Amino acid sequence: MNHAVKFVDVENMARWIQREGVENIITGMVDYLEADYREWERFDKIPRVASHTPFGVIELMPTSNGKEYSFKYVNGHPSNPARGFQTVTAFGVLADVDNGYPTFEAEMTLLTALRTAATSAMVAKHLARKDSKRMAMVGAGSQSEFQALGFRGVMGIEDITIYDIDPEAVEKFKRNLEPLGFNITACSSVDEAVLGADIITTCTADKAQNQILAERHVAPGVHLNAVGGDCPGKTELESSILDKSKVFVEFPEQTRIEGEIQQKPEDFPVVEFYQVLTGQATGRDDDEQITLFDDVGFAINDFSALRYLRDSVKGTDLESEIDIIANPDDPKDLFSLVANVPSLL
Amino acid sequence: MNHAVKFVDVENMARWIQREGVENIITGMVDYLEADYREWERFDKIPRVASHTPFGVIELMPTSNGKEYSFKYVNGHPSNPARGFQTVTAFGVLADVDNGYPTFEAEMTLLTALRTAATSAMVAKHLARKDSKRMAMVGAGSQSEFQALGFRGVMGIEDITIYDIDPEAVEKFKRNLEPLGFNITACSSVDEAVLGADIITTCTADKAQNQILAERHVAPGVHLNAVGGDCPGKTELESSILDKSKVFVEFPEQTRIEGEIQQKPEDFPVVEFYQVLTGQATGRDDDEQITLFDDVGFAINDFSALRYLRDSVKGTDLESEIDIIANPDDPKDLFSLVANVPSLL
Repeated sequence: MNHAVKFVDVENMARWIQREGVENIITGMVDYLEADYREWERFDKIPRVASHTPFGVIELMPTSNGKEYSFKYVNGHPSNPARGFQTVTAFGVLADVDNGYPTFEAEMTLLTALRTAATSAMVAKHLARKDSKRMAMVGAGSQSEFQALGFRGVMGIEDITIYDIDPEAVEKFKRNLEPLGFNITACSSVDEAVLGADIITTCTADKAQNQILAERHVAPGVHLNAVGGDCPGKTELESSILDKSKVFVEFPEQTRIEGEIQQKPEDFPVVEFYQVLTGQATGRDDDEQITLFDDVGFAINDFSALRYLRDSVKGTDLESEIDIIANPDDPKDLFSLVANVPSLL
Repeated sequence: MNHAVKFVDVENMARWIQREGVENIITGMVDYLEADYREWERFDKIPRVASHTPFGVIELMPTSNGKEYSFKYVNGHPSNPARGFQTVTAFGVLADVDNGYPTFEAEMTLLTALRTAATSAMVAKHLARKDSKRMAMVGAGSQSEFQALGFRGVMGIEDITIYDIDPEAVEKFKRNLEPLGFNITACSSVDEAVLGADIITTCTADKAQNQILAERHVAPGVHLNAVGGDCPGKTELESSILDKSKVFVEFPEQTRIEGEIQQKPEDFPVVEFYQVLTGQATGRDDDEQITLFDDVGFAINDFSALRYLRDSVKGTDLESEIDIIANPDDPKDLFSLVANVPSLL
């Protein structure tokens, strides 16, 4: 009576990442992302479905390419770390569009960290200057190590300057990454961190209209990877930075609600990143241009990440099964699963 | 590192239903439904989020009362039974709004059958004539036994006339329910089944604008429990039945897209059923009135069902745990879960 839904729990997700390595996974995931982004126009796309409260948000992120369907459950609660919880937790599911049955479920707190870094790295690979050597990071939270490893795997970046208002978070970042060969400079201000950087990544968690980065911080030629402005009322950049930059987004309908461009009018010009991959739009136009990826995270990113994970663990001891789909022998006789055996009546 | 998410899989769901009994569960679930419906105005409510294909639909159904959040994944594929799959499969999750963490996951194919029957029975309890003795059923698919048991548990209905275009489905229905004491008459037409019935339940699966029930089938005083018109392009009733009836719905914004009233203009008059419970609207006005519940299934029904299940299995051997939420000791140090132990490097 069982319908097999393959399953990767937290323990096996951690084992997978340890076994394969964060950089290898992100590099492989970028191939899946690029393949799906090239098929962008085939996907069912809607802004994520959010349930907001004063403390945070719970979101569902569905999408489908007509063959497979995926969704992710994800929360965002900036006040969580102070209470011992994570800002973001997630899990997700793949399903077969043909019969509607789920096929795969996985933890996605770790997978979201990987796919967010993979998306950042994919975009930077196409938009940052090819000679980029150093990345400045503002924010040393849960996403920071994954960003650094993604940029090393895809762009070869090993030099990092980093600033966070929480010095302990920076210490944690150094402790986690210095053993892996990174050259990390802890800075005492954003100004110090961004000076001379080729790429700037902002990734902070406060749910507020902040100006983590001011216009003076962004020099000509920089690629700006703006990750943390991803919720209505949550931005990181001084508005004038957007005017100086060529702005790239995932799905404009969602980014205008959630991204840095929520500070701008509805018709603020943006480039849909998939069009850079398909050749319908140009990326960076010259070495002096500031390119800005206004990343909010889109459902197709999770679709790609789930596909990559599913394919990577297939047939290994990292996948198990989860018994969530009742499947009676006679599909019209669901009741047979709960009818008491007559002799027991 | 684990965050405990309680879990009820298919096997334990079936054991729970066998142990408690379908009628007892539906009766208890009606109390939870009524409690939540009375608080209707506190809930976050949106039409379900549907991904349609030519073969069927995959839907997400989220809601929240500000303290707890729930969503259900559910598909609807009318061509599935002919291929050995069920029309509907489902699973769902409860979460804590305060920190956004999931707390409970369960199979919901069986639970949806229970909650659909519980919703039908709850509504009929308030709208059908108190002296109702016999229910006519059109459709003997997976939902049919649950409907019958729900109406017996809540309304005391034991006499059932039933018609289905598939005689084997009717045989299955009789085989499942006659041992439980029902008085069942298999009919050779809808006309025969509905003659003299107090309540008519329509629950068929074809995705088309059908007229399973014509105006001549609906006598004065009947309560019509219309379950199977629940998708754009999928209706069961001749349009003129709606004009003769007082029509009750769950959430008008969703029902106007999916229910029988999709056949009618946007301003077709309906009563929101919760208002009958809160006293803001009247239910049945006299014994000659035709009352019609245009049921499409709403997210709050699943919220109530998940709460009831969670509370019922709490502390028993029917609940297990599922490892889907990564939870590092330091919430800003997600990377610690995947950092290789230094001695292994």
